[in-house]
Amino acid sequence: MKAGLGVDIGGTNTKIILISERARALKEIRFKTESQKGYGRFLGALSENINCLKKEFSRAKISGAGIGMAGDIDSDRGVLRFSPNLNGWRNIPLAADLGKKTGFRYVMENDANMAAWGAYVLELKKKAQNVLVATLGTGIGGGLILNGRLYHGSTGSAGEIGHALIVPDGEKCACGNSGCLEAYCGSGAIVKRAFSMIKDAAAYRNRFGAGPDLKINTVALANAADAGDKTAKKVWAETGSYLGRGFGSMILVLNPEYLILTGGVSKGARHFLPSMKKALREFRIRTPFEKVRVIVSENADLGSYGAALYGLHYGEHVPQK
Amino acid sequence: MKAGLGVDIGGTNTKIILISERARALKEIRFKTESQKGYGRFLGALSENINCLKKEFSRAKISGAGIGMAGDIDSDRGVLRFSPNLNGWRNIPLAADLGKKTGFRYVMENDANMAAWGAYVLELKKKAQNVLVATLGTGIGGGLILNGRLYHGSTGSAGEIGHALIVPDGEKCACGNSGCLEAYCGSGAIVKRAFSMIKDAAAYRNRFGAGPDLKINTVALANAADAGDKTAKKVWAETGSYLGRGFGSMILVLNPEYLILTGGVSKGARHFLPSMKKALREFRIRTPFEKVRVIVSENADLGSYGAALYGLHYGEHVPQK
Repeated sequence: MKAGLGVDIGGTNTKIILISERARALKEIRFKTESQKGYGRFLGALSENINCLKKEFSRAKISGAGIGMAGDIDSDRGVLRFSPNLNGWRNIPLAADLGKKTGFRYVMENDANMAAWGAYVLELKKKAQNVLVATLGTGIGGGLILNGRLYHGSTGSAGEIGHALIVPDGEKCACGNSGCLEAYCGSGAIVKRAFSMIKDAAAYRNRFGAGPDLKINTVALANAADAGDKTAKKVWAETGSYLGRGFGSMILVLNPEYLILTGGVSKGARHFLPSMKKALREFRIRTPFEKVRVIVSENADLGSYGAALYGLHYGEHVPQK
Repeated sequence: MKAGLGVDIGGTNTKIILISERARALKEIRFKTESQKGYGRFLGALSENINCLKKEFSRAKISGAGIGMAGDIDSDRGVLRFSPNLNGWRNIPLAADLGKKTGFRYVMENDANMAAWGAYVLELKKKAQNVLVATLGTGIGGGLILNGRLYHGSTGSAGEIGHALIVPDGEKCACGNSGCLEAYCGSGAIVKRAFSMIKDAAAYRNRFGAGPDLKINTVALANAADAGDKTAKKVWAETGSYLGRGFGSMILVLNPEYLILTGGVSKGARHFLPSMKKALREFRIRTPFEKVRVIVSENADLGSYGAALYGLHYGEHVPQK
């Protein structure tokens, strides 16, 4: 049986998945990334997990392996150049390091690129040519499928949509610049905007907080909006408006057939899509906007699936040692 | 002798060019587009000019013909969908109409796409994979070469960079929306901003006005800045700052090797490049910005050359009837 291995490394969690050729999950593993404890420890934990999985599926032919990683990736060399979300890690040759420890050859991409490939295969069955996939979470990433292929750009950095400017001299962003899309529509920014409007935070937590510690996160805000809460509704409407402005410019540049929204924040789509679509209607060059279809992907694991699928796709080029 | 025919249709002028396979100009014709006088008249004038040229070069084998046109183009069908700059013309099947009248088969693209192809061939000798070409004139257009090919997008509308938003609820744009890049960096917007700062317009005209009617246009403003005029310097610095913000977002999305600036406004490049580059340095995801090189193309006829070169390139697919 042929199988593909996918690794998705995010700021909080790392996921490992083994899928069949038909994209059926055979095994999933999830652990805390804990990048602040250092790369050596992380590499040890990751390779150990993969080696266990390899033993468990010793009869499977793992013919492709992919890594998606939050950060600036040199995909030609399989090196993480820099990741603000991974404790500022720099120049980490993860593909080679992990290859040595596990015996696979890994194709490595920005996590949003892998998620884009996952969405392209799983949501669209590759039945489109030009697709913009936006991963809306703590950070905002993007991946592009152009002319039916994953588009990397010249340094593997294409699709860094989270740091496109939407408000000149606007809100401070984690990247160091101001006015980035992420500074308005990343989950942290959304929650912060909500808190700036909430008068009695304790009461709000009691009423809408999620989980045992009554956290106000984007899930809580989506539920609050469902319950008719005006603050949450306003925050989501603003979020949609910012997203529409940002995506509108990208749709003009890229003229895609699909815009696919994924990631945790996209769970609030029912609340932000109306104002997002309204903002898209403000653009007057109509043809690209009449063409593009907006899809929300419910698949929470596009990053790891995408990494495995892209690994399989490139299996011939990166054969198992 | 093999030759390529290029037609570049702008809001003001239409250019026809015949080039050799090595991109040497054999003949150039230029006439006023005068779209307000109607499409029928324009088609007559254009086809007459081409038929004359055809007679003159009856021994040349014109093996490819291209049309670049300012507006929203359906390149698959060779139809102008809509052009605000051409008197609002809609659904004009120019490629077919002109084909009937002149006996060639035309490949038709947005004028910025043709200029992009021209820049790619003439400036870079095709020695790059991913290039963003911005045409800075009355309008602002863009063309993309991605993975070494002209990228159309899904409806031939890709690269509509002039209407990317750079200021929320900002200046009114000709397209009907507000805050577009073109509303800040199109030649009209630049001149308007200058006039809003000039106290004595008559004196300013006398001192810096271009041509016999002492017009204040972007050439005049470039000369004024050369002469140390503070207003002109400020206008150019602001223009660069807006351009940098707009291009910065596009560089994050596309990660190109080159950004090529063309068009009349790019003649002010010596005055706006410093502030444009400063604005680009504000972006903190550094890799794509370290990679991209900014080039100003001095070739004023990239649109027509590009149309002819693209015609030749596609000559095999669109053979002469």
